[in-house]
Amino acid sequence: MMRKLVAGIDIGGTNVFFALVDAEGNIFSKSSVRTKDFPEPQQLVDEVSSQILSLMKNHPDHELSGVGIGAPNGNFFNGTIEFAPNLNWKGIIPLAKYFEEKLNCKAILNNDANAAALGEMIFGGAKGMKDFIFITLGTGLGSGIVVNGEIVYGHDGFAGEIGHVMVERNGRPCGCGRKGCLETYCSATGIVKTYLEIISQSEITNHKSEIDARYIFEKAHHGEQAAIDSFNFTGDLLGYALANSVAYTSPEAIFLFGGLAQAGDLIFKPTIESFERNVLNIYKGKVKILPSRLNETDAAILGAAAPVWK
Amino acid sequence: MMRKLVAGIDIGGTNVFFALVDAEGNIFSKSSVRTKDFPEPQQLVDEVSSQILSLMKNHPDHELSGVGIGAPNGNFFNGTIEFAPNLNWKGIIPLAKYFEEKLNCKAILNNDANAAALGEMIFGGAKGMKDFIFITLGTGLGSGIVVNGEIVYGHDGFAGEIGHVMVERNGRPCGCGRKGCLETYCSATGIVKTYLEIISQSEITNHKSEIDARYIFEKAHHGEQAAIDSFNFTGDLLGYALANSVAYTSPEAIFLFGGLAQAGDLIFKPTIESFERNVLNIYKGKVKILPSRLNETDAAILGAAAPVWK
Repeated sequence: MMRKLVAGIDIGGTNVFFALVDAEGNIFSKSSVRTKDFPEPQQLVDEVSSQILSLMKNHPDHELSGVGIGAPNGNFFNGTIEFAPNLNWKGIIPLAKYFEEKLNCKAILNNDANAAALGEMIFGGAKGMKDFIFITLGTGLGSGIVVNGEIVYGHDGFAGEIGHVMVERNGRPCGCGRKGCLETYCSATGIVKTYLEIISQSEITNHKSEIDARYIFEKAHHGEQAAIDSFNFTGDLLGYALANSVAYTSPEAIFLFGGLAQAGDLIFKPTIESFERNVLNIYKGKVKILPSRLNETDAAILGAAAPVWK
Repeated sequence: MMRKLVAGIDIGGTNVFFALVDAEGNIFSKSSVRTKDFPEPQQLVDEVSSQILSLMKNHPDHELSGVGIGAPNGNFFNGTIEFAPNLNWKGIIPLAKYFEEKLNCKAILNNDANAAALGEMIFGGAKGMKDFIFITLGTGLGSGIVVNGEIVYGHDGFAGEIGHVMVERNGRPCGCGRKGCLETYCSATGIVKTYLEIISQSEITNHKSEIDARYIFEKAHHGEQAAIDSFNFTGDLLGYALANSVAYTSPEAIFLFGGLAQAGDLIFKPTIESFERNVLNIYKGKVKILPSRLNETDAAILGAAAPVWK
């Protein structure tokens, strides 16, 4: 009998990572394309499917038994991406169906953060935990909420959008059309906006094209006060928002994942300080705020693939 | 064989209601005492236990098979009330143990709002729903969150404290020691504060002792603008907070319960308008905001008793 592989696909605002995954969570033949190169979702499906089929040729003793997709605003129940503010594709996109038609196998789509949370739960730092929150600090802020060992999907499959909890009245405009959403502050793009608000106009004029979250990290690492202040502001607001979040599901831990989480103490210290200062007394000292234990692209790919094996 | 009854006890900031309940959810011999009459929790346990035993004498063919308690900051896992801001009893109180010792039967304690949510799920408007949020607008704002047909307890049993989600930076001081918690605005005491901020000093001087949520309701009912504005302000903020809440668990419905919810359109209209205006597009038009279908004290008593029957 042929052995089986699953294609795990992680769709982000910037990149689409994909790989073949076996039942033990080993990853083979990782590859990627740039999301913005595909104005229409079918074009992406065509390209990724064709690359997956050619990757499968390296494994002649295996068959492709399914596709698992993690995507922003992905709906597990419907297999669709719906109104994703951080993607160019508008409206409701039946991406699982597109992949099923192209690859003649089942496709399961999950919210990208839910997929990564599943990865953390099965292969990472949340092993054995029944209640945790998983936060991705990427282009936006994604979240996966686990209650009693299960991802919270909610009535319609769209639960866990902590990035769109409004934290400032009349705050920064958000891609979702509203104002003051958490992700307009606490994300890679959010910290850039914060930094641009703090530094002088002349610095902006000289460096604007280079300024991204990594640039701010390097500056902070070398002691630049504006960059350190940007991380402190971001962590302060994130800690405040997470203090509110635990009042919903009272998790054992909150995992921070994604580029900004890799800034270590620069982001964790102000976040934890603000969290403990702001959290309701009954939760004080009880909730661990931890870095994800998984490699960034691996977690999302493994988590995307995981439900296909079930 | 003796038939069985359970004592359901609903502990609130103002009153303690209790009754005997049979397995079909019929309520017998309802009674109550005033919470503030008992400076020590053991005094309350003594009085309520003795009244329960005397109520049992009316049912000579039944035995008391257990006690179910709903209480603010009640912890289902530990059977304790912990640091309840709206009770005079401070610290951690092992109330289930006190009742067990006094009545020689098992006692199960739940958060009061979780108990009422269970009542709504088993006997009320949430029958058949798997994902909903239950909000009690009483002295404070309590909440019970149901995900996939189960109350969310979280890691430590303290999940579902939406009343202590902070909605205003440096907002009104809260009994929990922090500022700007939702319940300082959206509760019977919150709307009184709002009304006192709106009306003139001379009105306050003349009516202060009479002004409670019911007074404001009567005034609004008779068209007084300050009272109507107080309901609008309360609903506006509640709708905003509930719009944020659905981003966590994406419920099918939100039930409003308690005195303030009985104000009908005065509270539901501004709440629903604000909710739909503020909610993320993927949730728009999907979440029903409904009045509880249960009589106020019955829901809490039935819900408190429910876990004992399991």
